[in-house]
Amino acid sequence: MEQEPCKYAEATSHKEEKLADDEERDPESNSLHQPLLKRNRTLSSSPLAMVGAKLRHPSVNDLGGCRYLIGFIYFTGVNFLLTMVATVMCVCFAPTAAGPGIPEIKAYLNGVDTPNMFGATTLFVKIVGSIGAVSAGLDLGKEGPLVHIGCCIASLLGQGGPENHRVKWRWLRPFNNDRDLRDLITCGASSGVCAAFRAPVGGVLFALEEVATWWRSALLWRTFFSTAIVVVVLRAFMEYCKSGNCGLFGGGGLIMFDVSDVTVSYHAGDIIPVAVIGVIGGVLGSLYNYLLHKVLRLYNLINEKGKIHKIILSLIVSLFTSACLYGLPFLASCTPCDPSLTDSICPTSGRMGNFKQFNCPKGYYNDLATLLLTTNDDAVRNIFSTNTPMEFHIFSLIIFFGLYCILGLFTFGIAVPSGLFLPIILMGSAYGRMLGIAMGPYTNIDQGLYAVLGAASLMAGSMRMTVSLCVIFLELTNNLLLLPITMLVLLIAKTVGDCFNPSIYEIILDLKGLPFLDANPEPWMRNITVGELVDVKPAVVTLRGVEKVSRIVEVLHNTPHNGFPVVDDGLIPHMGLPDGATELLGLLLRAHLVLVLKKKWFLKERRRTEEWEVREKFAWVDMAERWGKTEEVAVTNEEMEMYVDLHPLINTTPYTVAESMSVAKALVLFRQVALRHMLVLPKYQAAGVSPVVGILTRQDLRAHNILSAFPHLERSKGSKKRH
Amino acid sequence: MEQEPCKYAEATSHKEEKLADDEERDPESNSLHQPLLKRNRTLSSSPLAMVGAKLRHPSVNDLGGCRYLIGFIYFTGVNFLLTMVATVMCVCFAPTAAGPGIPEIKAYLNGVDTPNMFGATTLFVKIVGSIGAVSAGLDLGKEGPLVHIGCCIASLLGQGGPENHRVKWRWLRPFNNDRDLRDLITCGASSGVCAAFRAPVGGVLFALEEVATWWRSALLWRTFFSTAIVVVVLRAFMEYCKSGNCGLFGGGGLIMFDVSDVTVSYHAGDIIPVAVIGVIGGVLGSLYNYLLHKVLRLYNLINEKGKIHKIILSLIVSLFTSACLYGLPFLASCTPCDPSLTDSICPTSGRMGNFKQFNCPKGYYNDLATLLLTTNDDAVRNIFSTNTPMEFHIFSLIIFFGLYCILGLFTFGIAVPSGLFLPIILMGSAYGRMLGIAMGPYTNIDQGLYAVLGAASLMAGSMRMTVSLCVIFLELTNNLLLLPITMLVLLIAKTVGDCFNPSIYEIILDLKGLPFLDANPEPWMRNITVGELVDVKPAVVTLRGVEKVSRIVEVLHNTPHNGFPVVDDGLIPHMGLPDGATELLGLLLRAHLVLVLKKKWFLKERRRTEEWEVREKFAWVDMAERWGKTEEVAVTNEEMEMYVDLHPLINTTPYTVAESMSVAKALVLFRQVALRHMLVLPKYQAAGVSPVVGILTRQDLRAHNILSAFPHLERSKGSKKRH
Repeated sequence: MEQEPCKYAEATSHKEEKLADDEERDPESNSLHQPLLKRNRTLSSSPLAMVGAKLRHPSVNDLGGCRYLIGFIYFTGVNFLLTMVATVMCVCFAPTAAGPGIPEIKAYLNGVDTPNMFGATTLFVKIVGSIGAVSAGLDLGKEGPLVHIGCCIASLLGQGGPENHRVKWRWLRPFNNDRDLRDLITCGASSGVCAAFRAPVGGVLFALEEVATWWRSALLWRTFFSTAIVVVVLRAFMEYCKSGNCGLFGGGGLIMFDVSDVTVSYHAGDIIPVAVIGVIGGVLGSLYNYLLHKVLRLYNLINEKGKIHKIILSLIVSLFTSACLYGLPFLASCTPCDPSLTDSICPTSGRMGNFKQFNCPKGYYNDLATLLLTTNDDAVRNIFSTNTPMEFHIFSLIIFFGLYCILGLFTFGIAVPSGLFLPIILMGSAYGRMLGIAMGPYTNIDQGLYAVLGAASLMAGSMRMTVSLCVIFLELTNNLLLLPITMLVLLIAKTVGDCFNPSIYEIILDLKGLPFLDANPEPWMRNITVGELVDVKPAVVTLRGVEKVSRIVEVLHNTPHNGFPVVDDGLIPHMGLPDGATELLGLLLRAHLVLVLKKKWFLKERRRTEEWEVREKFAWVDMAERWGKTEEVAVTNEEMEMYVDLHPLINTTPYTVAESMSVAKALVLFRQVALRHMLVLPKYQAAGVSPVVGILTRQDLRAHNILSAFPHLERSKGSKKRH
Repeated sequence: MEQEPCKYAEATSHKEEKLADDEERDPESNSLHQPLLKRNRTLSSSPLAMVGAKLRHPSVNDLGGCRYLIGFIYFTGVNFLLTMVATVMCVCFAPTAAGPGIPEIKAYLNGVDTPNMFGATTLFVKIVGSIGAVSAGLDLGKEGPLVHIGCCIASLLGQGGPENHRVKWRWLRPFNNDRDLRDLITCGASSGVCAAFRAPVGGVLFALEEVATWWRSALLWRTFFSTAIVVVVLRAFMEYCKSGNCGLFGGGGLIMFDVSDVTVSYHAGDIIPVAVIGVIGGVLGSLYNYLLHKVLRLYNLINEKGKIHKIILSLIVSLFTSACLYGLPFLASCTPCDPSLTDSICPTSGRMGNFKQFNCPKGYYNDLATLLLTTNDDAVRNIFSTNTPMEFHIFSLIIFFGLYCILGLFTFGIAVPSGLFLPIILMGSAYGRMLGIAMGPYTNIDQGLYAVLGAASLMAGSMRMTVSLCVIFLELTNNLLLLPITMLVLLIAKTVGDCFNPSIYEIILDLKGLPFLDANPEPWMRNITVGELVDVKPAVVTLRGVEKVSRIVEVLHNTPHNGFPVVDDGLIPHMGLPDGATELLGLLLRAHLVLVLKKKWFLKERRRTEEWEVREKFAWVDMAERWGKTEEVAVTNEEMEMYVDLHPLINTTPYTVAESMSVAKALVLFRQVALRHMLVLPKYQAAGVSPVVGILTRQDLRAHNILSAFPHLERSKGSKKRH
């Protein structure tokens, strides 16, 4: 059907010819007499409008026969080019810009840094690539990318600029630590959601429920502040753009999918359809997660073959999408406009609006074209439209649902910036509306509201969020009376979904192999102690308070560890302790050892430095530097024999556990206090024993590391995860 | 004015007499011909409606002269009686039921258990007392008490009933631990807010932002579940009560103070009035906190004198309130009804509704009576009313604001169940509406919306919440377009308020002397280590793995500690350790020691018990028991010489810190992992040294304990608190 030959189109049925004739005679139809290209120029009118605006299709409704083919070629061609720009940029310049970025952000806030995730290049590619991908009409959203964009901006602001051109202003210094950078990035994420859905409170809650691992009340208030600023700026732009000089930007005002005009009336009996929506949404959501997992694994295999394969994959998806979007509306029949609806133009061939004319005569509209040949945002708006019970045929909705299920599965993994929210909302709303039509005789709830509930249920079934989704939907639809039903649907869908598999972000995290530290320890972690865990590893490498340079160089070269315990054997008389006593001085970071070698703070003899020496040498800027590389260090043979006093550099109060602690409890401590290193102390007291038994890092506490050391525990791994 | 003599009333002006005559002639006025008492019977019609319904005043508008005095006596008398019932119940049966209960709940979730806080008596007194106090027309809300009621119910459900009549069903057992009880009580708090404001998401966020100390994502979803159920049940009751057979219950539907009918239009210039509202709200809020603190300290002095003083104080406040509510409306002039308002009856003498007639002729209303002689909920609804720019005179608003400032300060501390939300909303809305009238010429924003913003700003200025208040106001008013402005107002008011003093709940916590563990360590805590802290205390009391009964009895009698480290001197050969090595076995709770003595698990000789012996003896029910008392134990002289194997009872994996850890970091660990005891390990390794240096509990980590031991640190305590 998509590649309909020109001849066939010319030999179209008498009826269609007549329709075309009708239009040609219609003085209002601005068709045929203007060249196609001129009309296509509206495309480039406003770059702002392009974020979120799918490419305007050539007004196919005024083309008969062969002209449909020309329209198809233009449509597909432009979409193809836009996809190519997006995917080539992603593949060649910033591979981390592909996908939504939310799992990586989640991992970052959990303590796992993905390289090049928040750089300036990534930011640029993400912005341009997202505009390209969304404009190309692909089935993906701008929400995930906007969250990532927000985080990139936050990270760049916090660091004072891109990696190699950092500004080192004094007022930026307080941000130059891990904790504040994490806070800033959380604020960026919430601002992104706020900008995407115009949902300030939803943004805060999304950051809290889905993204952040550590949460403090100060952070709640900071994210709230940032989303307040975002929404004020948004509101100001909308005020400025009221006259329509910013394209589609600001369409829908602050509320994107307003369904507040419908009176919500429901009774006890409506609990049943609501429960049905929830259950089906949960099942569909987890099914979607399952299938997407399989598709992503397949795509991983393809993508591993090289850059060119990635690009070809994207382009094939683009071609398929364009063909379906353009071709499928021909399957739908034309529906007469309902004259009682006065608030919307019917039919329309404009860029926005409900009731698209497409190939239909005047006074008729093509319901499938109304959903397919428009921006994704507008498609949602149309499908949510209330008080229009006869607008969409169940047949068109089935086609739409099927198409978007396929597209949703096969589009997400390609190498362009892509969000998951909108595809799931599109699928869910179609399913909800179908259910609404089926339930029609038994319920009072409007079909548009069914569509909203369907979207909510599928989101909850796939992403497993509750409060944040609830607020986001409230802020999207502005219908407070729907809230009790939405809450029920979300709860049911999440519960049902949790029976089958984890949330989509957890699946992606797992696929990417990011060592995410989960909140709940696995049951088998209770059965081994940290003492047993550090026993199977190579013995811990310790340093002394005043150490020889050669030993430091040796340690840096031979171990990849990022932290070293510093221990003194009882040379210092102290508090009447017997001879042979040993003392734990603290923890030293690798970066600081490298710093010592770089700055050459060497001493000729084995002695402690005085305080004035320390004050002279150290500046906070050096200490904040965490990324020193061993390769940059050159030490002469003479220097090798010198000493370094490590005392001023030691973190004297590291968190510690006794060796009898279970791994599960250590994990809780690790996550709750946001640690990187944890020292294991012996539970025995004896002379000549090292005061530190071992050192644990995040990597040690992850499941597969432990399981490889304790194969007998593997059996119990399959046991069900607690929630 | 309140105690206006009968004579004066009879000698009222010609105009007033004429008005009364007018009404007597009016066939619709159902006055005078019915006895007063009969009309008062509506009071007892529905207990449900009484929660939240202030006492209906006798229809004073149809009484001339001396009859006003009779009305006043009835009004004051009934209010007096209701207050008496509430306060006598509180004072005599459950003193913990007085006040809002929210600070105590906050403390409980932080780890501080107030005795008798969640018992069955407290629950009963709180319900009945709250109905009495609110019905008596006192300036207090039902929100705080509802939160407390929710928590009481949650606690009783979790424990399986009241203290002495617990059901020990098997399915209740999983709830019988501290953590799940805490979760349940958090759910109860959120349900309370949800029921009070019909704001499910607001309830979840309130529990998160204000009440809870420890938060897990599972908890988010549990609180969400409970508020969803609350809102569904509420909705069902409203459906059932639609016909009006439940009194005032359900008035306003799911949205209590709906202002969605007004078009919100604002421009860049409106930022200034919004900022002004926020700044003044912040200043007023912190001033309110300051003055309330002073009043509460004064009340504490009065209340300490005995029960009778408490009761008299409440009754004086009740008399004063009734006199003001009844007398002040006479100061206001009558305003003609606006005929263009078709959606509300004007004037009305019904129990609900805007535009109260009171002493005015037909076609006129008394604006101050509209605010004062109605339920507190209705007063807020009236003052929020939109599109009625001329409804309230600035003079009436000033009287109202002044009155409620005084009442708000002097009502809160009396011995009845009382909430803080509604008094602050009343004050704030009056101030906002006044500001709206003053700003009228310069702004497009409706006066009703100004009232909403004023209420929000005062709440933020006093309670310092952001996201939860924002959502609660959204759910109260159903005006999503107002959200950006509300956010700005909240942020500004909170920031301004934070400059002056802590939030009202923190002030109350401090007044009550509850040892609340703050999230942010004080700066001076960085300067001392836990080693120094345990040094100044009496030496740590340790037990051995197999201990003599006499030693256990001695320890229990001589120390009040709740946990004891168990240490073994190196009698057990282990892992090639040298002789004289000591081993830390773990931590033993006092309750378990008492349990051992009670159950008499004694051994004749010093030996370890076998596993089958352990399995025979222990049941989880015994272990969950935390409140064993030493007095219940009787040990014979013969038993004193026997031994106990403590090994099966030891918590072998207590959290530990090295003695070099700073108190600040220990505090973070304490709070983050929700600890009660923390063992301090030595950083030295030597023979014959105890493997545990000391033990820290919550009490040790609180400011004044430490400060009394380290007086030199006192100086820095005055330094500003970080936020």
